[in-house]
Amino acid sequence: MRQFDSNWSYVNKGELTPLGFAFAGVSAGLKDSNNKDLALIVAPKGSICSAMFTQSRVRASCIDICKERIKKSSGFIRAILINSGQANACTGDVGIQHSYIVTAKIAELLGINEGEVLLCSTGVIGVPIKINNLVHNLPKLVSELKLNSLDNAAEAILTTDLVSKKISIETIIDGRKIRIAGIAKGSGMIYPNMATMLAFLTCDAGIEKEVWDYMISIAVEKSFNAISVDGETSTNDSFIAINSGKIIDKKFLPIIQSGVDIVCQYLAKNIARDGEGANCLLEVLVEGANCTEDAIKVAKSICNSSLVKTAIHGCDPNWGRIISAAGNSGVNFKLDLVDLYIGSYQILEKGSLCEYDPIKISYFLKTRMKGKYLEEDIVQIKLKLNNGKFNGTAWGCDLSKKYVEINSEYTT
Amino acid sequence: MRQFDSNWSYVNKGELTPLGFAFAGVSAGLKDSNNKDLALIVAPKGSICSAMFTQSRVRASCIDICKERIKKSSGFIRAILINSGQANACTGDVGIQHSYIVTAKIAELLGINEGEVLLCSTGVIGVPIKINNLVHNLPKLVSELKLNSLDNAAEAILTTDLVSKKISIETIIDGRKIRIAGIAKGSGMIYPNMATMLAFLTCDAGIEKEVWDYMISIAVEKSFNAISVDGETSTNDSFIAINSGKIIDKKFLPIIQSGVDIVCQYLAKNIARDGEGANCLLEVLVEGANCTEDAIKVAKSICNSSLVKTAIHGCDPNWGRIISAAGNSGVNFKLDLVDLYIGSYQILEKGSLCEYDPIKISYFLKTRMKGKYLEEDIVQIKLKLNNGKFNGTAWGCDLSKKYVEINSEYTT
Repeated sequence: MRQFDSNWSYVNKGELTPLGFAFAGVSAGLKDSNNKDLALIVAPKGSICSAMFTQSRVRASCIDICKERIKKSSGFIRAILINSGQANACTGDVGIQHSYIVTAKIAELLGINEGEVLLCSTGVIGVPIKINNLVHNLPKLVSELKLNSLDNAAEAILTTDLVSKKISIETIIDGRKIRIAGIAKGSGMIYPNMATMLAFLTCDAGIEKEVWDYMISIAVEKSFNAISVDGETSTNDSFIAINSGKIIDKKFLPIIQSGVDIVCQYLAKNIARDGEGANCLLEVLVEGANCTEDAIKVAKSICNSSLVKTAIHGCDPNWGRIISAAGNSGVNFKLDLVDLYIGSYQILEKGSLCEYDPIKISYFLKTRMKGKYLEEDIVQIKLKLNNGKFNGTAWGCDLSKKYVEINSEYTT
Repeated sequence: MRQFDSNWSYVNKGELTPLGFAFAGVSAGLKDSNNKDLALIVAPKGSICSAMFTQSRVRASCIDICKERIKKSSGFIRAILINSGQANACTGDVGIQHSYIVTAKIAELLGINEGEVLLCSTGVIGVPIKINNLVHNLPKLVSELKLNSLDNAAEAILTTDLVSKKISIETIIDGRKIRIAGIAKGSGMIYPNMATMLAFLTCDAGIEKEVWDYMISIAVEKSFNAISVDGETSTNDSFIAINSGKIIDKKFLPIIQSGVDIVCQYLAKNIARDGEGANCLLEVLVEGANCTEDAIKVAKSICNSSLVKTAIHGCDPNWGRIISAAGNSGVNFKLDLVDLYIGSYQILEKGSLCEYDPIKISYFLKTRMKGKYLEEDIVQIKLKLNNGKFNGTAWGCDLSKKYVEINSEYTT
């Protein structure tokens, strides 16, 4: 799952994080288990925030509060509080009040302005936050804040994810060490509700608000907006990216962009791979489209197809379903120009069937279906439209009986 | 699954069909089994055809041939040949040639113009039609043509549908008996490919081409375009509607429209109910939208949601998923105006949770999950947006492990 360009190197285990950012994660008794469920990210003074939120019309009140505060503060944000256990969506006025109470309290403890605090929640929809437990544990949370340690925060934002998702990378720009770090949670199910995607990125290269907004939108399009577990969008989906420190010369921005892309794609792919019931990471490359948007659209259509996902799960090199999903994307292409590969096996050349051994491809697919979350579990589908010069990638996972089991489990 | 207005009554078992239309279905050795796999519908001289086809960019050559012939003949079509077993999609020049050969042959046998013959195929993608078997059996097919019998044709167009789908209704307009009949096939899986929806409607009230096109588009929007099994569109999806006979006075068109709607909705609901692995028909009514399109859009978003479908399968009254799916539809509404019902149980009133007994609702859902295909298996979800005065309905089914099993079965 690692993807690097030559500028950036991986900081092992995410133990070193961008300068001045502090992280914490504790158990506040929000979940029924004793697992960590409350996280805090504190950014240095003058940090600049950009964020993307769920497009759903039904969203948690914390989303509205985040949007309003980022706008009012012109992006000068100092802290993000994240709770798991209760999504605090569809909870009416009580939900809104709770959001204000907890962000006011954390502002007080940190000695910052309430308007500089963001809140993200994930967990059960329609259930108010366990406000007493949360407030009671805020002092402990603040006391646990540490530089250079993503671990506790990465763990506390999870719901039923199987693994925590974190990454830290670094480079040297003009003699200055620059780090970018990120954590994320993906699709886990808690009664009575749904998957939420949360991701947080920190960066210690200073970048002005307008530029940072643009860079983040570019990165999101190629990462979080290019993954699908089951085509569902949550009430609470959020991605928040904060930069801090001395403003970097604009000639180095392409390097920072590539770093932001690496972190976002790493987190996005890990979310897809950890989709409910998944046994592999499905990576679909579409090449030769008329524009990048078209390429990603086709790739997402393939990743989203239940018929493709079940075929991959069944280790069935069912090329007709792949082509058919591409045909349903709404993007124009000519079948008789198309080349198709599953792994390194070519299936179609200029729209005509190649001679291939389905048994071999099936065996290849079988080797990629891992019970556990591993690195050698990528199933790559490559579709060359040979129609233009733009490429795009999307990520998903197989669709298994386990997905149905997890999501139809009767818990009332 | 029966829905009638006062004008129309059901013709038992579809044994009586519109005047002058003949139907046949035989086994031509296209399928591996001995099941029927070749059907023919012959319409009286002067019949007028309207059709809707898959929007997929990847479509079988028979679709292009149908479109071209309907256009060239201004809708004067006399026969539809339908084969199951091979979809004849993605088969290049061979596929096109085969389509021309079989339609020329049937035209010759019927003594009509080749341009008045349509062809629909369903089955395996990427595999050419078994042309010799098909051609060899055409004389037998023609000799089997019968008035007033949908049965054989309805059976021959199936792939792995569990039941055949047919309906015939009649009314008296101005002293004249009018009948509308329809047959359809839904989502069945044949290696290596995919579900195809085919539906055919015949009517013995004469209606001019432009009006008929409009009436059919109205009916399709509220029926075949309002169902989903798994959000997939096939290479071969087709709906063809033919009317015949003396032109009916335009003041009676609303009655005909309601009859066409009944037939289309009956077939569409039966397709949804017979979705792969389905145990119930999911019917989502959305009321109080700003326009019909919005209402149907919200209803379809709920029917399409894997999380809603798995919850229904698990008999879990998971209202958060329903609201969340509505929120993802792209339609604007206010949560604090929304009323939500599962069956007769109210869950939300003006966006606030009602007191309800989840155990009771779960028991209600359990009674609706039928192993077999029955009439008492409708799960109705009603969402009142209270935002406008337009309503819409969509249909789907639950998502079960069986769906995954059917579609991931390894057959290479």
